[in-house]
Amino acid sequence: MRPPRRLRLGVAGLGRAFMLMLPTLAHHPRVQIVACADPRPEARIRFTADFDAPAFADFGALCDDPRVEAIYLATPHQFHAAQVARAASAGRHILVEKPLAVTLAEAASMVERARAAGVHLMVGHSHAQDGPVQTARRMIAGGEVGAVRLITAANFTDFLYRPRRVEELDTAQGGGVVFSQGAHQVDVVRLLGGGRVRRLRALTGAWDPARPTEGAYTALLEFEDGAAASLTYSGYGRFDSDVFLDWVGEMGLRKDPTRHGLARAALAGVADAAAEAALKTNRGYGAPGQPPGLPPVSPPEFHNQFGLVIACCEKADLRLTAEGVELHGDDRRLLRRTPLPDLPRAEVLDAFCAAVLDGARPVLDGAWGMATLEVCLAILQSAREGREIALHHQVAPEGF
Amino acid sequence: MRPPRRLRLGVAGLGRAFMLMLPTLAHHPRVQIVACADPRPEARIRFTADFDAPAFADFGALCDDPRVEAIYLATPHQFHAAQVARAASAGRHILVEKPLAVTLAEAASMVERARAAGVHLMVGHSHAQDGPVQTARRMIAGGEVGAVRLITAANFTDFLYRPRRVEELDTAQGGGVVFSQGAHQVDVVRLLGGGRVRRLRALTGAWDPARPTEGAYTALLEFEDGAAASLTYSGYGRFDSDVFLDWVGEMGLRKDPTRHGLARAALAGVADAAAEAALKTNRGYGAPGQPPGLPPVSPPEFHNQFGLVIACCEKADLRLTAEGVELHGDDRRLLRRTPLPDLPRAEVLDAFCAAVLDGARPVLDGAWGMATLEVCLAILQSAREGREIALHHQVAPEGF
Ligand SMILES: NC(=O)c1ccc[n+]([C@@H]2O[C@H](COP(=O)([O-])OP(=O)(O)OC[C@H]3O[C@@H](n4cnc5c(N)ncnc54)[C@H](O)[C@@H]3O)[C@@H](O)[C@H]2O)c1
Ligand SMILES: NC(=O)c1ccc[n+]([C@@H]2O[C@H](COP(=O)([O-])OP(=O)(O)OC[C@H]3O[C@@H](n4cnc5c(N)ncnc54)[C@H](O)[C@@H]3O)[C@@H](O)[C@H]2O)c1
Repeated sequence: MRPPRRLRLGVAGLGRAFMLMLPTLAHHPRVQIVACADPRPEARIRFTADFDAPAFADFGALCDDPRVEAIYLATPHQFHAAQVARAASAGRHILVEKPLAVTLAEAASMVERARAAGVHLMVGHSHAQDGPVQTARRMIAGGEVGAVRLITAANFTDFLYRPRRVEELDTAQGGGVVFSQGAHQVDVVRLLGGGRVRRLRALTGAWDPARPTEGAYTALLEFEDGAAASLTYSGYGRFDSDVFLDWVGEMGLRKDPTRHGLARAALAGVADAAAEAALKTNRGYGAPGQPPGLPPVSPPEFHNQFGLVIACCEKADLRLTAEGVELHGDDRRLLRRTPLPDLPRAEVLDAFCAAVLDGARPVLDGAWGMATLEVCLAILQSAREGREIALHHQVAPEGF
Repeated sequence: MRPPRRLRLGVAGLGRAFMLMLPTLAHHPRVQIVACADPRPEARIRFTADFDAPAFADFGALCDDPRVEAIYLATPHQFHAAQVARAASAGRHILVEKPLAVTLAEAASMVERARAAGVHLMVGHSHAQDGPVQTARRMIAGGEVGAVRLITAANFTDFLYRPRRVEELDTAQGGGVVFSQGAHQVDVVRLLGGGRVRRLRALTGAWDPARPTEGAYTALLEFEDGAAASLTYSGYGRFDSDVFLDWVGEMGLRKDPTRHGLARAALAGVADAAAEAALKTNRGYGAPGQPPGLPPVSPPEFHNQFGLVIACCEKADLRLTAEGVELHGDDRRLLRRTPLPDLPRAEVLDAFCAAVLDGARPVLDGAWGMATLEVCLAILQSAREGREIALHHQVAPEGF
């Protein structure tokens, strides 16, 4: 028997998403980081120091490097489509950050390119990969609690007041919470609800003229089987729904409730869009002032979470927590504790390695990501046109 | 100056609603209970013993009793319309339990009869009368937090498993949670959102074949000014949203979380619909085994509440609690404590006395109740017909 081999992974885009995944990428037992691409020289210098591996300014060079068998694509949304096409044509498997793309046409062509090239296309990190979501999905799919009838999801964060690039505040370029945060919430809800949304009605809010994109939405989804879901999100940084998760934050870390509001306050002193983008970059990989070396990593205390999620099923209600799934039945209440991963967000790399190395079909594949994008686009369209939108590209989750 | 006089109130329907209001009715400083009507002899006997006042089997006799100047109508929904007409034609002011009626035609004729007779028609007890809701409405109407943009309301109770009359489980007769509980939630949301709902889309759930009426719903409302609201309710007795109110229950009393599920368990032993209705009656006024005398009353520790309610406004988010209103602003968070009434649910009688004795126009008048009923009916219709419903009888709350 050969020793289990590691996935030779190239990374594209060494920004915020990469920083969040860095401890996991650096320490995941099935992953070996072999190269990267980013136009920012300071990020490349840091990468070479940290990983002793080549760093390309050009994405194509990363794709063509023979050491690279798969790519984690964490570049801005608007580059996802062309970069997936490029990577696929070089025969590389791709893990692309959410949202898959900005338009449905892009998404469809990405799915097609990956299929034609015979490579895996997977979406992640998505909060649908959080352990408790997976546990709940298994409880549902396994028949323990019957079919889902009604899902209630609500998340109140300060998303809109974290430092942003210009595109992130322009809906036409994929900006706003519907693309960036809706992708997570819709993923979670679709995974629990069986994937296939029939139609939806939504309203969105763009309440801050200084940040003229959607900062909030509420949507009513109907699944093919008649199940309903209510999704609500506000990124305006006032009420913080982490109170419902006992002050465990999105990343599974204990959170100091009194620090809420600081994001908005920090931004208040920023002069213009360029200064704001620079502020974002200055928190990115390779920016001056960061401690040297790979970040230390400790086993997580809690799971990642994406706000309040309650799934009413035929035989019980399930409430997601940062520890697992609360089951509220007719005559019992219990916490189905979900084992913690060894590393935060390990689940997404577990699934990607299982796909590429073991041939397992990932649940959150390209078609899945396209279906979630379709829901996000329909939320925007429903709000814009004031009417219900029917969906046509929905898929069921498999592999449970 | 004459001493302030008391409202000479007759009570019709000595059932559950009356029992909940009894301490307040018996001890409210501006109310004098002067007569009642109920077909149940045991209730009448008890009433005469408690209040030393006449008790009629016939509702018409109550209306015609010259001592009675106003009536608190706590009979089953289906009697509200005819009884309001009868009371109005006798010149009596009416406080009618929610929902105002079962059909829009009934509601319209009630409003018209009251208008023609020159009497006040008011709806209550409604949770829109809870102190924190009124505080939040004042904060909004007074301009402190700007206009409402998005309201999130969610309530998970065991409503469907409390003992019921047959009609209460038959939607055609006003049964199910949309009529009985939607009336509260819609009242709260309309009061905060400015009253005038333009259109809505909703889905309902009737998941228990043994109780074949709606036990759950979720609805997306759009107000005339573009504000959005998401309303969710499940009465299936599993997850209990009082956890979000720090285990203060609907009536403002501390609640033992481990007792949840008992309603359903108790019902499991009941043989048939007749036995269930008897079970309900046996908890009613005058049933054997109840302690004699008027119930003692102590000042409430907390406000009544109706689940999770968060109103995102232009300048701050407001979250209702059992103590008041949490304000989550850009740079501050505070609890706007709402003074507790001297008696639980005093607010509804305060408002009714203010209307009848002082000539103040009640916020929750007949037109208001009709508008809320229209929303409830539209929730049912939207779910039934699978389409968005436009509303035509909406009114704004006045008096703030
Ligand atoms: N799953 C999550 O929790 C999460 C969190 C943050 C961001 N994201 C996603 O990750 C993606 C990136 O967002 P971000 O916030 O990290 O942005 P960012 O601006 O912080 O980082 C983007 C990085 O990509 C680099 N880049 C730009 N063009 C490139 C190119 N052609 N080739 C290679 N690199 C290039 C930039 O220099 C920068 O380092 C987005 O799709 C976003 O939705 C996901
Ligand atoms: N606001 C609240 O918290 C609340 C709570 C419970 C009920 N309610 C409302 O109160 C109303 C009554 O519901 P309930 O649960 O008390 O019902 P119930 O069955 O417990 O009580 C109804 C009472 O009305 C009596 N009655 C029947 N026909 C009558 C008639 N023609 N004239 C006079 N009395 C008559 C019955 O004998 C019974 O005592 C409903 O509209 C309900 O929605 C409101």
